[in-house]
Amino acid sequence: MTHRLLVQYGRPTDPAAFDRHYRDVHVPLARAIPGLVRFELGHAEALGEAAAPYLVATLDFESAEAFAAGMQSPEGAAAAGDVGNFATGGATLSHYDVEDVTG
Amino acid sequence: MTHRLLVQYGRPTDPAAFDRHYRDVHVPLARAIPGLVRFELGHAEALGEAAAPYLVATLDFESAEAFAAGMQSPEGAAAAGDVGNFATGGATLSHYDVEDVTG
Repeated sequence: MTHRLLVQYGRPTDPAAFDRHYRDVHVPLARAIPGLVRFELGHAEALGEAAAPYLVATLDFESAEAFAAGMQSPEGAAAAGDVGNFATGGATLSHYDVEDVTG
Repeated sequence: MTHRLLVQYGRPTDPAAFDRHYRDVHVPLARAIPGLVRFELGHAEALGEAAAPYLVATLDFESAEAFAAGMQSPEGAAAAGDVGNFATGGATLSHYDVEDVTG
């Protein structure tokens, strides 16, 4: 079952610098994580009263085991270690088994 | 470009009742929204210090226009109106154009 890492970045102090670092440095680091099968992102807008994250990224792996192995790899550690270099608005990470209920 | 609605539910007062209502009532209502092309969900766990949402749902549409039309349809209104019936831990909604950077 696909396992997904959901990363939500709060609004950074310098959005242009954040976007540049994210695109030029962080995306290549994250792409290198072993077992990553899909990597998607977008700048979010709120629907309703709660604030939206500035950027949402989803990183999909084949399974929970592949996710754990990827995060524990040197490449996973490098990507995780880079977050502090640009996420001036904070980063909230969660992960879950993805169930498709499209029907 | 795929447009995604990201719904994050806070931990409900009665998780079993939440799950039952979500599965039996809310999923069918959301599935009926015109233009929905993918609907995925999962019970999340935190990675790091920040609290994880209890449940994450992503609803994908072909485009921002299809998303807007779907949300404004009677079926979209019915699904949105149902949230107050079970989301005792709150619901945070955001939406974004999905960019695939898998590489």
